Amino acid sequence: MIEPKRVLRNLKELRDVTSDADGAQRIAWSPMWLTARAWFEEKIKDLPVEHHYDAAGNHWITLKGKSDRSLVIGSHLDSVPNGGWLDGCLGVVAGLEILRSLAERYDGTPPCTVRLVDWADEEGARFGRSLFGSSAFAGTHTIEADRVRVDKDGSTLEETLRSCDVEVDRIGEAGNEKQNMAAYLELHIEQGPILERLGKPLGSVTGTKGVERWAVRFRGREAHSGSTPMDVRQDALAAAAKLALEIRPISRRYPQSVATMGSVKTFPGIVTAVVGRCETTLDLRDLDAHVLAGMLREAKEASERFAAEERCTVEWSKIWSIEPIPFHPELIGLCEEAITETAGTCERLPSGPLHDAAEVARAGVPTVMMFVQSLNGLSHNREEDTKVEDLEQAVLAFGRLTEKTVQWVTT
Amino acid sequence: MIEPKRVLRNLKELRDVTSDADGAQRIAWSPMWLTARAWFEEKIKDLPVEHHYDAAGNHWITLKGKSDRSLVIGSHLDSVPNGGWLDGCLGVVAGLEILRSLAERYDGTPPCTVRLVDWADEEGARFGRSLFGSSAFAGTHTIEADRVRVDKDGSTLEETLRSCDVEVDRIGEAGNEKQNMAAYLELHIEQGPILERLGKPLGSVTGTKGVERWAVRFRGREAHSGSTPMDVRQDALAAAAKLALEIRPISRRYPQSVATMGSVKTFPGIVTAVVGRCETTLDLRDLDAHVLAGMLREAKEASERFAAEERCTVEWSKIWSIEPIPFHPELIGLCEEAITETAGTCERLPSGPLHDAAEVARAGVPTVMMFVQSLNGLSHNREEDTKVEDLEQAVLAFGRLTEKTVQWVTT
Repeated sequence: MIEPKRVLRNLKELRDVTSDADGAQRIAWSPMWLTARAWFEEKIKDLPVEHHYDAAGNHWITLKGKSDRSLVIGSHLDSVPNGGWLDGCLGVVAGLEILRSLAERYDGTPPCTVRLVDWADEEGARFGRSLFGSSAFAGTHTIEADRVRVDKDGSTLEETLRSCDVEVDRIGEAGNEKQNMAAYLELHIEQGPILERLGKPLGSVTGTKGVERWAVRFRGREAHSGSTPMDVRQDALAAAAKLALEIRPISRRYPQSVATMGSVKTFPGIVTAVVGRCETTLDLRDLDAHVLAGMLREAKEASERFAAEERCTVEWSKIWSIEPIPFHPELIGLCEEAITETAGTCERLPSGPLHDAAEVARAGVPTVMMFVQSLNGLSHNREEDTKVEDLEQAVLAFGRLTEKTVQWVTT
Repeated sequence: MIEPKRVLRNLKELRDVTSDADGAQRIAWSPMWLTARAWFEEKIKDLPVEHHYDAAGNHWITLKGKSDRSLVIGSHLDSVPNGGWLDGCLGVVAGLEILRSLAERYDGTPPCTVRLVDWADEEGARFGRSLFGSSAFAGTHTIEADRVRVDKDGSTLEETLRSCDVEVDRIGEAGNEKQNMAAYLELHIEQGPILERLGKPLGSVTGTKGVERWAVRFRGREAHSGSTPMDVRQDALAAAAKLALEIRPISRRYPQSVATMGSVKTFPGIVTAVVGRCETTLDLRDLDAHVLAGMLREAKEASERFAAEERCTVEWSKIWSIEPIPFHPELIGLCEEAITETAGTCERLPSGPLHDAAEVARAGVPTVMMFVQSLNGLSHNREEDTKVEDLEQAVLAFGRLTEKTVQWVTT
């Protein structure tokens, strides 16, 4: 039997061991993340499962079934810095409860194999590379680009992963886990305000928005803040500030687009010098590939115009991108059924945030996600929260979806 | 006899030992700065002088004269990161040549005492506190505010200075050096484009502009870049970007004002989150105290308007300020004479950049500065440069000014 209250207890326990006053600190490859994983290993000890870490650091827990065909439930334990208590870990901890209930109900051997995966570094918070583990699994990883990534303290991704026993050159071997994979399910908080605005606790997710993620670097000329008249400056910050503001009207032309400048770094970055170099990041998202390409083009054109106005130059380098990815129509339908049977009502909606499910879907595995309402649309923030009754309904509905999918996989 | 070519040789030697491919790296309290000071100690070894470091880390070299009344020549060896080869050290190295020529000419005992001072941490590049040593000397230091300053790596000013044998609690004792001080002269590159535009090699400086230097922090709400619709965001970067642009029209209302946002830091500062907190610095300067106060008021009002528009809050905290400081009329006249006798032409101009001379002047010591033309108005930059013939004329004219001031002090 599925016990939603146990899921809540476990989530609070995990929060207590991996958060501080500013929120969750389970940044991938950090000691706190390893603490979260060790905590999770303790939790699976009494289940009749095999578990191992693959070459990309993903953690796989397998409940062997009558058939080798497998249904995989997944999410991630890692968080952004100062993150919330539900983002990612809800799906892993709820998956554990479902695995437990299936083992109990089928006496250790369900009709098909059921696996739980805790993906490594979904957030990309430290090296700017989201969906690290699931893209290695999907075969869409980019070793050459990733090898040279550095965090803000100058550590390379390659060295950092090595300290967690992951060799960048070998991460593609995670693709071996695809064998016999027949379906993928992921439960996640919405992280946005849509379900709350509609007054619905749960939604069946139709797919994920495409994302264009770029580093945009403006170069002007460093100069003394006291002696350099305004009319001769080549202020890289001014060009960047114009772009920070211009991405908003660009995105507002399309109803479901979002555009974010999440990071600005100024060099030399001192009070007495005009900014000579300004490094920013952009993140653009839309459901429609054409709209997304248009936004990117408009942002690039705007940045070139602003650079010229400020007598600066601008360079764009891609951090990462992903096309819009639709989920599996039959699984979207099963998810809607499970939600309606549990909560009496369901909304179909796309996901703005990326999820590991997008990588699994583009690897060709039938995939769907279930969203549970977020309060105030907040996430990536210690104030992230969801009503207890909604979380309990989510666990029950996700259990129903799992049962339906076990049938779907085996018939 | 003054040998300008020796000054150039010494400057190049100093550049060679304290720069890298990005420029001068003599950041105060850093190993490279200590290297510069050790190099300088070697240079004074053969002169008939006493030298010591005061309680604020200023280095005093004294050539005793017939009279105890002293003429002080000063500047600073510290640089900003990636700085130029002349900013600060020109004045110290030229001062050394003048000390040498006076010792020679007066057989070790000039009519009055002549001292050279290398001020500690003029730039404030690491802790945002300019004119550290000269303000301790002037008695305008602010121990309580300075004690808690931290650099970008989290080291406190207090600890860092202790590692250089300077105790923050005792820096006021540097004021003892004021005794018998009758005049102060400082030679510096202009660091701006005015003399070059006028085609003049040298200028007599009438005073320094007032400066208001503030930390401006916007707080919004950190949120997920994919799931947070544009219309519900509280983007602290957007408010800061508006201010970065608005300070330009504010400053352009006044002909000699400058306004700079030199540093922007974003938190959490990752590609996948709307900026929840944005910390910026502002530096506003004008010759007229009323204009300066007006600019500050307008910038504050604008920041509050932008914060409200973006549903953010804004907080201003003062880093440092100084009023406009006029130099001594008679010394301005002597400086003009010395320049005209050397170069045939002279321009009187104010200084946009701050200098230790401002602190000395507000301590009541008759003060003047001489500026030598900068190429392309560049400074705080490895491309900072001045024509060789202008540097040579500067050393000669500054020697003449010293002679005139020795007479002025002793009669």
